[in-house]
Amino acid sequence: MKINNKHYQTIWVKKENPKIIQAIDQRLLPFEFKIVDLKTVDDVYFAIQNMVVRGAPLIGVTAAFGIYLALLNSDNSKSNDKYILEVAKMLGSARPTAVNLNYAVARQMNALKKAHSWNEKVRVALETAKRILREEKEYCRQIGLHGLTLIEKICEKKSHQTVNILTHCNAGWLACIDYGTAMAPIYFAFDKGIKVHVWVDETRPRNQGARLTTWELGHHGVPFTLITDNTGGHLMQQGLVDLVIVGSDRTSIKGNVANKIGTYLKALSAKDNKIPFYVALPASSIDWELQNNCDQIQIEQRDAEEVMFVEGFRENKIEKVRICPENTNIANFGFDVTPARLITGLITDRGICKAEREDILKLFPEYN
Amino acid sequence: MKINNKHYQTIWVKKENPKIIQAIDQRLLPFEFKIVDLKTVDDVYFAIQNMVVRGAPLIGVTAAFGIYLALLNSDNSKSNDKYILEVAKMLGSARPTAVNLNYAVARQMNALKKAHSWNEKVRVALETAKRILREEKEYCRQIGLHGLTLIEKICEKKSHQTVNILTHCNAGWLACIDYGTAMAPIYFAFDKGIKVHVWVDETRPRNQGARLTTWELGHHGVPFTLITDNTGGHLMQQGLVDLVIVGSDRTSIKGNVANKIGTYLKALSAKDNKIPFYVALPASSIDWELQNNCDQIQIEQRDAEEVMFVEGFRENKIEKVRICPENTNIANFGFDVTPARLITGLITDRGICKAEREDILKLFPEYN
Repeated sequence: MKINNKHYQTIWVKKENPKIIQAIDQRLLPFEFKIVDLKTVDDVYFAIQNMVVRGAPLIGVTAAFGIYLALLNSDNSKSNDKYILEVAKMLGSARPTAVNLNYAVARQMNALKKAHSWNEKVRVALETAKRILREEKEYCRQIGLHGLTLIEKICEKKSHQTVNILTHCNAGWLACIDYGTAMAPIYFAFDKGIKVHVWVDETRPRNQGARLTTWELGHHGVPFTLITDNTGGHLMQQGLVDLVIVGSDRTSIKGNVANKIGTYLKALSAKDNKIPFYVALPASSIDWELQNNCDQIQIEQRDAEEVMFVEGFRENKIEKVRICPENTNIANFGFDVTPARLITGLITDRGICKAEREDILKLFPEYN
Repeated sequence: MKINNKHYQTIWVKKENPKIIQAIDQRLLPFEFKIVDLKTVDDVYFAIQNMVVRGAPLIGVTAAFGIYLALLNSDNSKSNDKYILEVAKMLGSARPTAVNLNYAVARQMNALKKAHSWNEKVRVALETAKRILREEKEYCRQIGLHGLTLIEKICEKKSHQTVNILTHCNAGWLACIDYGTAMAPIYFAFDKGIKVHVWVDETRPRNQGARLTTWELGHHGVPFTLITDNTGGHLMQQGLVDLVIVGSDRTSIKGNVANKIGTYLKALSAKDNKIPFYVALPASSIDWELQNNCDQIQIEQRDAEEVMFVEGFRENKIEKVRICPENTNIANFGFDVTPARLITGLITDRGICKAEREDILKLFPEYN
């Protein structure tokens, strides 16, 4: 994606020095555009847990680089299986809900089995992280192409009037490496000249919609309108939404989708108003082992401060205001699970399928 | 209700000087407790439009005092029918969705028909406003008593474990004169020793839940937890909500309920999880003329700034931060309509009924 005419990804290996991983600091957007250096596995752990980087595909890739940095900064005596396992466990625990974290770490563990010397391990870890990065980027491009067909169909059905798409949180290129998951079809449609307009849920408590999705769409030139999380239902009742596309942090093989808290409410509303509700996700966000119901997905609970304080811009500074009485008791669940019965379909890198085991496995037969 | 052991209503005639109406300035809560003087009809219009006072029952009563102040500050030459009609129209337009505004203004117009001299008009207008105030207070008390029976039943069914009640926005005593609509049953249950706990939706964009409902509950000592508007669905899925009670700005005779934006999403979620969803409202919030569907209710659109900026407390001052890029396009709908089919029942001042014409008219046969 281009920011002021320069192409960016969310994360990359520093050209001049491959011992440093660089990433966009998403905590400061849209108010400040800053690149951070990740030099150690602790830097990576901090970046994931504190949402310097966020979004299921991106935190997976970041964790893969974390294992590379851990090895790079260790020595031959430490770079044994036990140490790698410890690092993998630590990184895997940084945020519990997104399955991509486990996926990327497992990929690294597997690749490293074949490496023996410290040198080889470091090289393999870097190559694997870079491979996962390239794959995730390509997954998103494929999601974009498949999702585009949906938007094209609606566009035709509406006689080329504007297609109104609602999205929740940020499942754009900032959540991935490039393109995005939920947003990729929108960018592809826009670039093809289809008239699209996006309703952007602000997505409390961290306002990823208000801060990141607006910023992305603005830079790409896609028309959008910011709304509170309460508004989507009314818009759907009024016929102002043609399609909902969201991302996913973990999708079970049965098609139940864990995504940013509030997604379930939008899915209910879409169902009630007969509006197609799609989830866009790469294979790396599917939990192939989650055979049973949604209750098995661990829902992250985050700090009460995220609800109590709202961060924003004031007098050229990023500042926080407290929005409730002091000592207010607060619950802050990060995700909810949308049951498969509310989902029209999944837009994956291999095509669109129903949110059900059989149909998912048709696209991914190797997991059968 | 008591604030630091002193009894308050939201609005009253100043004891020492009946030419002044006093009200709590709700724009500053919970950070500052301030009483404002309303001396003219323009003061009243400003207070309603800028949400110094808010909540359907309260803005109705405030408008009734507005007509009194208009007459008080006019002279005999101006206090004619034409002038009163103009004032009524102006006040009625201050906020379009709540029907209580029209109700109170119509009551005044009707009462004033029998008054002739300026003196008499002023006296009648004050008496009528005070009567509406007393009635609204009593309506809320009755709603509390009827709603209490619902909570008592759930308490018994749960073998006296804590009853978890979710509410949206503020339909407490701050929205009324005293007691509240949705909150009255909760206060009555708490005062009777029933273990209750309230999930408080923060209610973006103006955060009436985070600012007002928390403040009310805290002063009364009722246990509560503040959540983002996105969270209720997840809590319901997890069995953490036993009952939803919300207020209403306008309920059609068919049982469709206009209330704060986002109410519809919670009603959908309650239905999906088989949780009782009740709307508490006085007779003055029922629009007896709205025979057809929800589309006839005018949904107020408010300033984009309410979404773009979040107000809170910082370094002992009330301040605002901008939460999105500058020049972001924003839509700010104040209300949505929850269809009757999602509503378990209405808690009115005359008892509990189904959200349907026939059942409502059984309680209010005079409107048949």
